[in-house]
Amino acid sequence: MSAHTRSWRPSGIVTLTTDFGLEDPYVGMMKGVLLSAVSSLRLVDLTHGIGPQDVRAAAFFLAHSWRYFPAGSVHVCVVDPGVGSERRILVAREGTHAFVAPDNGLLGPVLSESARVFALEVERFSLPLASRTFHGRDVMAPTAARLAAGLDPAECGAPVADWERMRFEAPEQVSSDELRGRVLVRDRFGNLITNVTAHALAGGAGWSVECAGRSLPVREAYCDVPTGQALALVDSYGYLELAVRDGSAAECLGLGPGAPLTFMKGRA
Amino acid sequence: MSAHTRSWRPSGIVTLTTDFGLEDPYVGMMKGVLLSAVSSLRLVDLTHGIGPQDVRAAAFFLAHSWRYFPAGSVHVCVVDPGVGSERRILVAREGTHAFVAPDNGLLGPVLSESARVFALEVERFSLPLASRTFHGRDVMAPTAARLAAGLDPAECGAPVADWERMRFEAPEQVSSDELRGRVLVRDRFGNLITNVTAHALAGGAGWSVECAGRSLPVREAYCDVPTGQALALVDSYGYLELAVRDGSAAECLGLGPGAPLTFMKGRA
Amino acid sequence: MSAHTRSWRPSGIVTLTTDFGLEDPYVGMMKGVLLSAVSSLRLVDLTHGIGPQDVRAAAFFLAHSWRYFPAGSVHVCVVDPGVGSERRILVAREGTHAFVAPDNGLLGPVLSESARVFALEVERFSLPLASRTFHGRDVMAPTAARLAAGLDPAECGAPVADWERMRFEAPEQVSSDELRGRVLVRDRFGNLITNVTAHALAGGAGWSVECAGRSLPVREAYCDVPTGQALALVDSYGYLELAVRDGSAAECLGLGPGAPLTFMKGRA
Repeated sequence: MSAHTRSWRPSGIVTLTTDFGLEDPYVGMMKGVLLSAVSSLRLVDLTHGIGPQDVRAAAFFLAHSWRYFPAGSVHVCVVDPGVGSERRILVAREGTHAFVAPDNGLLGPVLSESARVFALEVERFSLPLASRTFHGRDVMAPTAARLAAGLDPAECGAPVADWERMRFEAPEQVSSDELRGRVLVRDRFGNLITNVTAHALAGGAGWSVECAGRSLPVREAYCDVPTGQALALVDSYGYLELAVRDGSAAECLGLGPGAPLTFMKGRA
Repeated sequence: MSAHTRSWRPSGIVTLTTDFGLEDPYVGMMKGVLLSAVSSLRLVDLTHGIGPQDVRAAAFFLAHSWRYFPAGSVHVCVVDPGVGSERRILVAREGTHAFVAPDNGLLGPVLSESARVFALEVERFSLPLASRTFHGRDVMAPTAARLAAGLDPAECGAPVADWERMRFEAPEQVSSDELRGRVLVRDRFGNLITNVTAHALAGGAGWSVECAGRSLPVREAYCDVPTGQALALVDSYGYLELAVRDGSAAECLGLGPGAPLTFMKGRA
Repeated sequence: MSAHTRSWRPSGIVTLTTDFGLEDPYVGMMKGVLLSAVSSLRLVDLTHGIGPQDVRAAAFFLAHSWRYFPAGSVHVCVVDPGVGSERRILVAREGTHAFVAPDNGLLGPVLSESARVFALEVERFSLPLASRTFHGRDVMAPTAARLAAGLDPAECGAPVADWERMRFEAPEQVSSDELRGRVLVRDRFGNLITNVTAHALAGGAGWSVECAGRSLPVREAYCDVPTGQALALVDSYGYLELAVRDGSAAECLGLGPGAPLTFMKGRA
């Protein structure tokens, strides 16, 4: 019996990922709605610092984070430029986890093709006086509370096959010694996360990376180079990342998301 | 029997609203005090990103947020420019909710005239070595913990009638087709929240708003205008808000809190 | 029987202090790991806004915060410039509290000389596919979860005596009327926390402080001076702090961490 045919067994944990920031009370309001529905919920912030309407960054962060949470967790992700339009809201089940998010590509990198995806019956789950501008509070939070209380994702609406998939560009394998990739995301420290996995470089030993007219060594840890020196290393997501020891790779190299780079073997 | 004469039944949930930010450990210390008193409390951050000593913004955010929380919640709000002075600390009961805040106007927009308000007996609830600079930690947190554990707000001190009320300016109804209002608050996205409710415009259909020498349409959702265009719409607080699709109204219009605006009917 | 020979009795509360910020999902991932190990844990953020790799500020904040939490709390602090190197990870017991942090000086101002300190057996507590860049998630979070579930700190590894101690410089007592100190830390409001305790000035009455070519009075509260005026007062950490009423002492005085100052008696 696969995980998908097992009955839904919630853990009572709900994670929240939004672009609301923490300066306004919007996240707090969502938590109020969740706790008003089920006062025993355990709420965890994944991050609310996604750039405004940056569906791409939200997808990357959620895709690499949800597996750290217990089976039965519900993950609500509200980065929703289309709020108020006719865009659907999705409820999905992947293994033992459930997801609630707008149908705007966000769940593309998160879900596998074996996930079961449903179009939420919005009217049925909305707060009585739902706004047209804040579906995170008025529709998605009440839905997540119901899921965390035991409602099966399959009970939320009709199954859909044509939900919007956004995929991150894959690196191009030029030869066994050369791989062309891109910067995907920049983190708070100025580290630049690429679309090349440690697996693709067999761990990275003996490789270097060419970018911004320079060649950087692939090393195992920040402390393998002197302070101020740039390197590439396997980051905590399992991807190759450009970094500067005790500094910002984004600033030192002048690169950002989308920048091309070439990994070369045997020239380090 | 009104909600006010019913006995106080706490939910064990305490919300926190401050201007402390999250860079210092002040909020964490308050949570330590709360949990040291009652380890089973459920603590929820409303926001700690209120501008330093911006009592007005704190009042607006709390006033529009507390009803989303379960009956029996205790709301602690520490935006307290007068800490260390003789200003009182208030404990209030509004319906099934309790509040703890300094007597500096903050609770004015939050409470109705039927709220019951008490002047906290500070000495009785303070930590043993209370500071003169951090009553949020040393006085208000221990008080909130006691309330959340079952202490009736009426047991916290003598009833007071002369607590400080701050009211937000009401819009001026010039005629059935014209309403003069103001910007109250700017949020993180640069949206400008006005003092005009959706109710005052009967939902807003057919209205426009004049501000900064321009006339903006009142629409239902961000996506009703092209990217970069300004509009007014009913926001998630139930107020008319100036916004720019995928942009910042504050920057595009050059407006901020206090700016005057005129809503006109039949010219959209 | 001293607190140290009593058996370890966890409260189920884990506090987190990091320099990760809240824009990335790193803190959320750590919480996922903690809850996956023990779903009933109660997690409290002390702060994640420590400046990148500012071990000194982390030490100051943790040292002045942990006592506000209940007996049996576990405090995880991840400010870890040496991650991936051979630096040890420490588990410590001080009275009824436990600590997990890298051996980089951070615990110096936190622990007394009577604390019991152990070198974590990293392999034994790591997640199966531990990274070399994120020991907070892959090593320290699982360890903290085990401690919070009942594992005695003494079971985590061999006792160590040569753990790295960092101490904050003590002020110099020139005479009974003169004390030379320094600024230790700047907080979000621009207040400058010094290394001089209220105790050293017998509360501060009758003292003044010379810094940046000016003489500032030592007062009891912000409101003891007019708006915009600089003063020194006893802060919520129990230290003398330079402040400007309704302003930023750091900006008004042009001072930061390390700046020297002289407290003088009888010239106020």
